[in-house]
Amino acid sequence: MTIDDLQARFAALCVTAGLDLREGQELIVSAPIEAQSFVGHVAGAAYRAGAPLVTCLYEDPSLIRARFDHGADEALDCAPGWLSDGVVKAYEGGAARLFVYGPYPDLLTGVAPERIGRMHAAMAAASAAEGAFTADLRVNWCAIPFVTQSWARIVYPSMPIAEATDKLWNDVFDVVRVKSADPIAAWRDHLAVLETRCQGLQALDLSALHFVGGGTDLRVGLAEGHQWVGGRSRAANGALPVCNFPTEEVFTCPHRDQVEGRLAASRPIALGGIVIDGLVVTFRNGVAEHVEAREGREMLEGLLSGDKGARRLGEVGLVPCNSPVARKEVLFYNTLLDENAANHIAFGQSYSACIEAGRDRNIAGANTSALHIDCMIGHDAMDVDGVLKSGERRAIMRAGDFVLD
Amino acid sequence: MTIDDLQARFAALCVTAGLDLREGQELIVSAPIEAQSFVGHVAGAAYRAGAPLVTCLYEDPSLIRARFDHGADEALDCAPGWLSDGVVKAYEGGAARLFVYGPYPDLLTGVAPERIGRMHAAMAAASAAEGAFTADLRVNWCAIPFVTQSWARIVYPSMPIAEATDKLWNDVFDVVRVKSADPIAAWRDHLAVLETRCQGLQALDLSALHFVGGGTDLRVGLAEGHQWVGGRSRAANGALPVCNFPTEEVFTCPHRDQVEGRLAASRPIALGGIVIDGLVVTFRNGVAEHVEAREGREMLEGLLSGDKGARRLGEVGLVPCNSPVARKEVLFYNTLLDENAANHIAFGQSYSACIEAGRDRNIAGANTSALHIDCMIGHDAMDVDGVLKSGERRAIMRAGDFVLD
Ligand SMILES: [Zn+2]
Ligand SMILES: [Zn+2]
Ligand SMILES: [Zn+2]
Ligand SMILES: [Zn+2]
Repeated sequence: MTIDDLQARFAALCVTAGLDLREGQELIVSAPIEAQSFVGHVAGAAYRAGAPLVTCLYEDPSLIRARFDHGADEALDCAPGWLSDGVVKAYEGGAARLFVYGPYPDLLTGVAPERIGRMHAAMAAASAAEGAFTADLRVNWCAIPFVTQSWARIVYPSMPIAEATDKLWNDVFDVVRVKSADPIAAWRDHLAVLETRCQGLQALDLSALHFVGGGTDLRVGLAEGHQWVGGRSRAANGALPVCNFPTEEVFTCPHRDQVEGRLAASRPIALGGIVIDGLVVTFRNGVAEHVEAREGREMLEGLLSGDKGARRLGEVGLVPCNSPVARKEVLFYNTLLDENAANHIAFGQSYSACIEAGRDRNIAGANTSALHIDCMIGHDAMDVDGVLKSGERRAIMRAGDFVLD
Repeated sequence: MTIDDLQARFAALCVTAGLDLREGQELIVSAPIEAQSFVGHVAGAAYRAGAPLVTCLYEDPSLIRARFDHGADEALDCAPGWLSDGVVKAYEGGAARLFVYGPYPDLLTGVAPERIGRMHAAMAAASAAEGAFTADLRVNWCAIPFVTQSWARIVYPSMPIAEATDKLWNDVFDVVRVKSADPIAAWRDHLAVLETRCQGLQALDLSALHFVGGGTDLRVGLAEGHQWVGGRSRAANGALPVCNFPTEEVFTCPHRDQVEGRLAASRPIALGGIVIDGLVVTFRNGVAEHVEAREGREMLEGLLSGDKGARRLGEVGLVPCNSPVARKEVLFYNTLLDENAANHIAFGQSYSACIEAGRDRNIAGANTSALHIDCMIGHDAMDVDGVLKSGERRAIMRAGDFVLD
């Protein structure tokens, strides 16, 4: 099969296994212009699945760059809240959302980090209501990776660009199981493993997780009534989307006041064209008090100062270090893949799906923020213990792999 | 200068002479994906002019085609009203709008006209509030032509596509006066001519226009307190945009109940990929009672049945047959250019700017509709008389040219 054939299969898988698009449901896609032909495959699949309308909000990276090159500093406080309000209206009308995430890591080279942070803060504030819709699973949504040339260039810098792009597409096709003889069956089996893992962790009724290894010694208290989630999630409209595609993680909600110790990131974080590398963070009473990084510290500090919840954790995720993504042994510079290679935490907003239904998420200890930034901490020398309510400890992972299953 | 250099000049002219973009004003652009590099020039010019944010709503013609190919018939009633509502919010917040109009005349080949009409009707209904904002000049806006390959192919069918595209771009550059030594000065002079012409017509205080020639014998009564408009118009926010770029016309508001006689279109109308050709319409008491066409009749009938105002006139425009567009002696299959080659009327919505401020537009006789479809009737054998309130007649045009100036 050609790359285009596999893209068409991938697009169809995103609409069915990914979004679980319902018949009669409108679909909003966000994608870079570079993804136009892929979006065409998505639209075809969605219309065949009974969508009445597919609208793509195309993103043009050169317009973002033009803004930094020709616009004024104060102008960065202006964000298209009107567009975000429009999307909220579509959600209220029942629309599903597909995020075709194609990174442009070199887009903002040379731009001052505080200017980038200023733009992100304004955008996050203007799109808070839109973000809450997907964070709370009020609609079915799915985020998928798309291979841009800009992305392929940093993953495989020594290859000619066409070769790098093809190679990275093949990586993506592997980790999303699109090359399987029966991708739908492969996903069903994989989702069953994640479901069993969630049930095992849920049954332990943990009060905390303790991560040790590779410079990290971090105790993450869990929210009251936290729920382990992995693979599919039930959206408020009844659909069962896989919100991140691929997904290898099981994850839950930390308690926003109960994170203590030291975190050393095991992989860089790539954010809006800026890389945060060599990150070390110290937590006390849930707050990221001290932030160090070899690269991108100011950018991260800017983001973490965006609102009160930005310095606290909203997610903790467990991933075996032998996952298909990890086995690639490539640093993808892309959270959507890298977080499926390693244990991770996230700064900022927590997912309501990770709190028992009917509980007040605020009282339970869930965190609220306009941000959600994943940070990888796992690797093959990491042990994870579960701390039971009795104080007793249970081995969850050893040397990066699950010992619980 | 290269095509790209001239595009950059054209983009800058659109932002200044076209939109009259105010410092601090947000800009929304609509454009086909094919126009990406041109939109980059627009964004650069807008940011340099002090825009805090430029957002482009890119249109992907292949998604429209996918809808007809893979979607259900009933689905065509669904329109992205949420996106239109978002744009209304941006207008309320002070945003200007640039419509980069790149036609795809062959996009919907083979699709049943009633399906296309159904989609257009749904879209018109869902975007009525948005359309009223620009029709009423509550914000500054501007619509400009963009040369797509699809468009160049029908204008110059016998040329290789690259040559056809370049030739059509050069036509556009000529008629928008971008190749002048000083395009800004060229526009200032041209706008002064249009302004003088408007003043002359306004001073006559006409009750009707009478068009005779080329199969047309049409008496178009004018609304009470009608205003002759041409070139720049004052928007409610104080800006002075040239809403159609290029523009050669002076136009005003017909009385919706006072149109009598026969109209024979002198050029085809190109609408959403469908061409209406050989159109003949008979009017009584303002209503298009009988519609005939060699091509596209059903499509037009569908549109004219969209709402009560669709069968009545909302605009009458006068253009000398020696305008720069007419001198090209090319049928552009694009209203934005062709209407500047010939006298024309429009079915549907009238412009509030064509009614004296303070008057009730409904009582004045202005028409209201979700549609606005221009139809060319002028050519070099047409005479136009003005009918004064006394019943006396005054020669306005003879053999296609103004005799009033
Ligand atoms: Zn995660
Ligand atoms: Zn996350
Ligand atoms: Zn006109
Ligand atoms: Zn018109």
